[in-house]
Amino acid sequence: MTSQYPEHAVPAIRQVMMPRDTNALGTIFGGVILSQIDLAAAIEAHKHHPSKIVTVSMDKVDFKAPVRVGDLVSFFTETHRIGRTSITVHVAVWAQRRFGGGEHAYVTEAEVTMVAVDDDFHPVPVGSVQRS
Amino acid sequence: MTSQYPEHAVPAIRQVMMPRDTNALGTIFGGVILSQIDLAAAIEAHKHHPSKIVTVSMDKVDFKAPVRVGDLVSFFTETHRIGRTSITVHVAVWAQRRFGGGEHAYVTEAEVTMVAVDDDFHPVPVGSVQRS
Amino acid sequence: MTSQYPEHAVPAIRQVMMPRDTNALGTIFGGVILSQIDLAAAIEAHKHHPSKIVTVSMDKVDFKAPVRVGDLVSFFTETHRIGRTSITVHVAVWAQRRFGGGEHAYVTEAEVTMVAVDDDFHPVPVGSVQRS
Amino acid sequence: MTSQYPEHAVPAIRQVMMPRDTNALGTIFGGVILSQIDLAAAIEAHKHHPSKIVTVSMDKVDFKAPVRVGDLVSFFTETHRIGRTSITVHVAVWAQRRFGGGEHAYVTEAEVTMVAVDDDFHPVPVGSVQRS
Amino acid sequence: MTSQYPEHAVPAIRQVMMPRDTNALGTIFGGVILSQIDLAAAIEAHKHHPSKIVTVSMDKVDFKAPVRVGDLVSFFTETHRIGRTSITVHVAVWAQRRFGGGEHAYVTEAEVTMVAVDDDFHPVPVGSVQRS
Amino acid sequence: MTSQYPEHAVPAIRQVMMPRDTNALGTIFGGVILSQIDLAAAIEAHKHHPSKIVTVSMDKVDFKAPVRVGDLVSFFTETHRIGRTSITVHVAVWAQRRFGGGEHAYVTEAEVTMVAVDDDFHPVPVGSVQRS
Repeated sequence: MTSQYPEHAVPAIRQVMMPRDTNALGTIFGGVILSQIDLAAAIEAHKHHPSKIVTVSMDKVDFKAPVRVGDLVSFFTETHRIGRTSITVHVAVWAQRRFGGGEHAYVTEAEVTMVAVDDDFHPVPVGSVQRS
Repeated sequence: MTSQYPEHAVPAIRQVMMPRDTNALGTIFGGVILSQIDLAAAIEAHKHHPSKIVTVSMDKVDFKAPVRVGDLVSFFTETHRIGRTSITVHVAVWAQRRFGGGEHAYVTEAEVTMVAVDDDFHPVPVGSVQRS
Repeated sequence: MTSQYPEHAVPAIRQVMMPRDTNALGTIFGGVILSQIDLAAAIEAHKHHPSKIVTVSMDKVDFKAPVRVGDLVSFFTETHRIGRTSITVHVAVWAQRRFGGGEHAYVTEAEVTMVAVDDDFHPVPVGSVQRS
Repeated sequence: MTSQYPEHAVPAIRQVMMPRDTNALGTIFGGVILSQIDLAAAIEAHKHHPSKIVTVSMDKVDFKAPVRVGDLVSFFTETHRIGRTSITVHVAVWAQRRFGGGEHAYVTEAEVTMVAVDDDFHPVPVGSVQRS
Repeated sequence: MTSQYPEHAVPAIRQVMMPRDTNALGTIFGGVILSQIDLAAAIEAHKHHPSKIVTVSMDKVDFKAPVRVGDLVSFFTETHRIGRTSITVHVAVWAQRRFGGGEHAYVTEAEVTMVAVDDDFHPVPVGSVQRS
Repeated sequence: MTSQYPEHAVPAIRQVMMPRDTNALGTIFGGVILSQIDLAAAIEAHKHHPSKIVTVSMDKVDFKAPVRVGDLVSFFTETHRIGRTSITVHVAVWAQRRFGGGEHAYVTEAEVTMVAVDDDFHPVPVGSVQRS
C-alpha cells in the first residue's frame, strides 16, 4: 500500500495543510499528522462498531517525508485485525504537493489499536452496538 | 450528485467534526463548513492549474441538514466550467453520522469560481503553469 | 452601503486578522471571512428574536479585495426582511489596513437567511421569545 | 464610560464567544478577554502611529462579570496619553448576552501602554510614520 | 525571583511557542502570554483549594522582552496571600530561546487574585473542598 | 520513571487541558497528547543540539489512562541515546486531575528519535552548532 499512491482508494480523512499547522521550522508540525492518524483509525473502526471506542496503542511511526503548507494530505485505512473487544487499523499517509495539483509523497504509516467501550469506558464486544 | 451519497467517489476533503468546531447551539458552526467548501474548490481547481488561484465568488448556499460533533464530513468536487483565466467548481457536502459508522445526510452544495493569478494577483491563463 | 465606508455605523463584528487566519498564499483564508459573515448575521437576527436561530442560506458572495494579516475587518449588518419564522440580513465587509490605521478596502457583501427554531430545531414565529 | 453601556460608540473589536473559548468551568477563558484587550489597544494606537508598536504594560485588570458562550463582547477604546514614543489607551469591555439580543454586562476595563518601534524594535517618535 | 532564572524550580506551565501564536509583527502575541499567566495562577491556587475558582484581578503587567516562535516559555508560581475566600499568586515568566537550547530571557511577572466559588459562583472559604 | 510520579523533576512541557482539546467523547483528544510528546522530545534534543532537528520516528505508544478537561499534563524527558546525527529521547506523560490539585495518573510514555539537520534538511553531526 505504501509503495504506490492508491489513486482509486477512498481516504478516511483528507485535508489541506494550513499555516496554523506549522512548527517553528515552517514545515507541518508532526503532531498534526499524528492527530489525524488517530482520527482516521477511529473512522475505520466505526465501520465495525459504530459507537464508543478508545485508542489503546499506536505502533512505531517512521516519518519518511516532510509535509508542507498547501499539501493535500490523505489518510488511507485498512482493518488488520478484529479481536473480541479490539480493532487494529493500518493507516497510510500520503501528501500531494500544491493543494493536490503536484506530485505525491509517501509520508508515514501506522498501526492503531482501539477498544470498544461502554459509557463507563469498560470493554464491550465489537459489533455489540448496531449501525443506525 | 446530491440525491444519493456517492459511495465510490473520492472526496476532495474529508474531516471529522470536533467539539472546537461547534457554535453556541452545540451543532457545528456553519463557518467551518463554508471554509472547507472554499478549500475543496481550490483542490479541484489545482488539477487544472497547479499554482496560485484566488476565490472570486461562491454561489448561493442552502443548508439542508445540521452537522454534529463526531460526523465525518465529505466534500465532493466536480469541475463545471473552465474559462480563459477562471475555473468554476461544484462542491457537494455530505455528513456521515458517528465517525462514519452511521447514516449519511446531505448537508449542502455550492458553486465556487476561482481565478488563476500571478505573484501580483493579476489573472493569468488557466494551465499556464505546468504540473510538477 | 458598499460604495463608501460607513464611518459612524456600529459593526456587528470587528476583528484583527492574525497569522493563524492565513491560507497557503499568505493572505487571509476566505473561510475566516465567511465564518464571521455567518456570525454577524446571527447577531443582527438576535435583535428580533433573542433565542435559537439557524442559518438556512447564504446568497452569492463576490470577493472584491484580499484581506491581509493585521487588517481590522468590520462586518456591518442590516435587516432586509422579516418573515413569519425567518429573518434575512445583509452583511457588508470592510477591511482597514494596518490594524485600522490605514485605508479602507471593500471586501464583500452577503445576504444571509436564518430561521427561528425551538429546542427540537422546528421553526417558531420570529419574536415569540422575549428579550431578557 | 463604564457605568453605562455606550450604545452609540463604535467598538475597536466586537466578537461572539464560541465553545472553543471556554475554560474548564464552561465560562469564557479570561485569557481570551485579555488577548482582545491587547489587540483593541493596538487598534486605537494605530490611529496615531499606523506602523509597528509593541505593548509594554497593562495596568491592573478587575473582572466584574463572567463572560459566557454566545455573548457578544465589545471592546471600546479611548486614547488617554500620547508621549514622545508611547501611547496609553483605555479599554472598556462589555458583554451582551445571547449573541447581542440580551442584556449588557460590564466585564472589565484596562489601561494599556504601547511604544512605537522601528524594525529593530527601538523606540521611535509617535506619528513619525505617515498614514497611507 | 525575577533577577535570575530559577533553574531548579518546577514551572506551573511550560510551553513551546508555535507560529499560530504570533501577532502581525511575527513575534508572539501578548494575549498568549496573558492567557497562560491566568492558567498558571489557577494551577497554584488549586493546591490550596482543589475545586472551582475564578480570577477576580490581575495586577499591572510590564513586558520586558519579546517572545519568539520556538521559545520554550516557563511560568513559575508562588502563593503570596491566602485570605478567607481569596488566593493571590505571583507568576514569573521566562522564555528560553531555541526550544530551550538557547539563553534565558525574563519576560514579565504578574500578581493574580482568585476567589474560591461554589456552583453558583458565590465565594466559599478556601480549602472548604478536600483534595481527592 | 513511570511507576511513580517524579515530584521533583522539571517537566519539558506542562499544560492545562481545555475544552477545545476534547474529542467527540468529551475526553482529551489523543492527538493533543501525541503532539506534545513530539515537542517535548524536541526540547530535550535541543539541549544537545540547539538548532534544526526533525523527528524521524516515534516508538510504540500505549495509552494507560484517559486525560480530562482541567487536567494538568506534564511531559518528562530523558535522553536515551546520542548517535552521530541522531538523538533518542524518552518521554513520560502524567496527568494531575483538577488543575493540578488532584491525584496523579500515568498516561503514557514514548521513545522519539530525531536527527540534526542543516537548512536543506540533510543530516549534520549532533552538537555541530554551538549553544548561544
